[in-house]
Amino acid sequence: VISKLPQTGTTIFTVMSALANEVGAINLSQGFPDYDCSPQLIELVNKAMQNGHNQYAPMPGLMALREQIAIKTEKLYGAVYDPELEITVTAGGTQAIFTAISAVIHPNDEVIIFEPAYDCYAPAIKLMGGVVKSLELEPPNYRIAWDMVKRLINNKTKMIILNSPHNPTATILTKEDIDELSALVKNQDILILSDEVYEHLIYDGQTHHSMARYPELQQRSFIVSSFGKTFHATGWKMGYCLAPAYLMQEFRKIHQFLVFSVNAPIQHAIAEYLKDENTYLSLPDFFQEKRDYFRKGLEQTRFELLPCSGSYFQSVAYDNVTDEKDTDFAVRLTMETGVAAIPVSAFYRKGIDRHILRFCFAKRQETLDKAVDRLTKV
Amino acid sequence: VISKLPQTGTTIFTVMSALANEVGAINLSQGFPDYDCSPQLIELVNKAMQNGHNQYAPMPGLMALREQIAIKTEKLYGAVYDPELEITVTAGGTQAIFTAISAVIHPNDEVIIFEPAYDCYAPAIKLMGGVVKSLELEPPNYRIAWDMVKRLINNKTKMIILNSPHNPTATILTKEDIDELSALVKNQDILILSDEVYEHLIYDGQTHHSMARYPELQQRSFIVSSFGKTFHATGWKMGYCLAPAYLMQEFRKIHQFLVFSVNAPIQHAIAEYLKDENTYLSLPDFFQEKRDYFRKGLEQTRFELLPCSGSYFQSVAYDNVTDEKDTDFAVRLTMETGVAAIPVSAFYRKGIDRHILRFCFAKRQETLDKAVDRLTKV
Ligand SMILES: CSCCC(=O)C(=O)O
Ligand SMILES: CSCCC(=O)C(=O)O
Repeated sequence: VISKLPQTGTTIFTVMSALANEVGAINLSQGFPDYDCSPQLIELVNKAMQNGHNQYAPMPGLMALREQIAIKTEKLYGAVYDPELEITVTAGGTQAIFTAISAVIHPNDEVIIFEPAYDCYAPAIKLMGGVVKSLELEPPNYRIAWDMVKRLINNKTKMIILNSPHNPTATILTKEDIDELSALVKNQDILILSDEVYEHLIYDGQTHHSMARYPELQQRSFIVSSFGKTFHATGWKMGYCLAPAYLMQEFRKIHQFLVFSVNAPIQHAIAEYLKDENTYLSLPDFFQEKRDYFRKGLEQTRFELLPCSGSYFQSVAYDNVTDEKDTDFAVRLTMETGVAAIPVSAFYRKGIDRHILRFCFAKRQETLDKAVDRLTKV
Repeated sequence: VISKLPQTGTTIFTVMSALANEVGAINLSQGFPDYDCSPQLIELVNKAMQNGHNQYAPMPGLMALREQIAIKTEKLYGAVYDPELEITVTAGGTQAIFTAISAVIHPNDEVIIFEPAYDCYAPAIKLMGGVVKSLELEPPNYRIAWDMVKRLINNKTKMIILNSPHNPTATILTKEDIDELSALVKNQDILILSDEVYEHLIYDGQTHHSMARYPELQQRSFIVSSFGKTFHATGWKMGYCLAPAYLMQEFRKIHQFLVFSVNAPIQHAIAEYLKDENTYLSLPDFFQEKRDYFRKGLEQTRFELLPCSGSYFQSVAYDNVTDEKDTDFAVRLTMETGVAAIPVSAFYRKGIDRHILRFCFAKRQETLDKAVDRLTKV
């Protein structure tokens, strides 16, 4: 037997982006911007290379960058992380998630996830011999029924994976969720993996309830963020993980043998760039404008808008358009209408179909215009 | 229980580089150059960023880069790899190694390694529930006793990990090794992971016996290389893996959830840079000059030179200097003499001491001069 993941195919992001490219569709599927990152940031990377920062960065990341991450985290969420022991720079959010799971999930450990879920959680858990316990959430609000979570918990429960702002549903955790979660894990040996890669993409003045805000949750959490998402440079593959020292120690044991360290010149550049807090404080407004613009456009179509509180994704229900399956309709929409989306069924391990597609609105206004124009004809 | 690797500490490379920095020693420990990569290559990265190549690269890597890798591999070793299905770009050699092991090692699978060994193999195997079967090789020539390997093989043997040119011993596989290996695996379901990150660093006109040269080995091999080592840019964290489609398919299942994809602008740059074959064909001469220079210098010291056929490492025996343990002497040499080396005992899981240190000679002439000067005083 060779395969470790016999049921696994190619991620939906690769499939849809490849199809979009092939047929020349507007690609609102995979989550990345079609505008560029800041020229100043590019210049900082160039300067770092020119200055000879082209050899291995320290294993946990450049200290100057870890310090800036600590400053940002304290400023935003009031949490104090020690750059020496509690912050590690990673090759993107995905590597951080994989590493955190690898670091603590033993065979037969149970991990609770909420579906629809980003598609990298379950394979990492299975690869480590862990068991996925999933709670399916219902559109349009996808609220977590915490009494149901409670029923999933037993003495094998090792971790709960949270994701807020949420991909693909664009929901966010509320203070009530935090209270329920806190009550649930109190006096239990349950860890939290909190995927917060869209932490800066949050709308209507709402609060991002980072685990870092709540000491009793923070002390059991791996928190993951992504500079790719934050600074419009998903292709640079840079993110980070925050965790209390006793967890970060285990994280680094894996990190050092999984990738050893992360791109040095980009670390230098982001360390410098982060010194201006406006680089990230301006993001909610920047993205809200796109969200509002795209939603307004979609109102002219036959699609039904689901709520969007955070992330750069807008979901739509298409029940009154067709009763095709999500993947079938996503493929047909790409080929015939020229707009690529992600079928939300791909975020359920069982491929559950709720007749919902996800669009990424991190796009230039003219791209959104063109997409809406095409979608109006459906 | 939280820890997956309770016996694991911080890698020796981190420890020694940190100590070297702290005390201001000449750092010949961790393997990286102290001169810069080509300005042309830096300019190509800058151009790629300026041209807006800052979003996700395709999951298996930029096609233009995979095509160049295929061309280089065919030119050097005569092997034809399909860029579509058999080449994947990784965040450095370490990520490729970790991913290959993760992709095929199941619980209780046995993996044969040769010690001294690069320190990332065993933890990755153990993390997957695999069992490390190790054969210890003896200085100064570290030849593999293939009859001993044969005795380690049973029906649980899933993989053999080879590394040529070898880190830390600077030995290379010979044609005789290849013949023995071929005879051994013939008609057996044994995979090979071939760590060839120093493929271009090979001396005295000798041949690099890549697994890619031998169809019957190639078809069962993951071959790993590193652009960081090849192009003097270890901090860019870019490498790749070659494997026949049936293995690469499994590799990519892990890769896509472990890191998803790799730095885009650097892929664009290297794809362009590789078009000139001289960028890599010139390397053996470039490094041989350094090796010869450093060896000549060391002859004036009390250290005894071990052979060096490849890689950028020179080992020395220090029996006639002290009977301290490798790590103790390495630390003292760093602090008192101001030259940092890697204790070769760190490459044995059991910390076996052979009174050997490893120096990296990928350094400017004046750095080597200064180091030799200091070492002469020992
Ligand atoms: C890593 S590719 C997917 C990007 C993303 O976060 C998404 O589209 O959901
Ligand atoms: C990944 S850090 C170690 C670099 C290296 O290959 C070595 O020093 O052996």
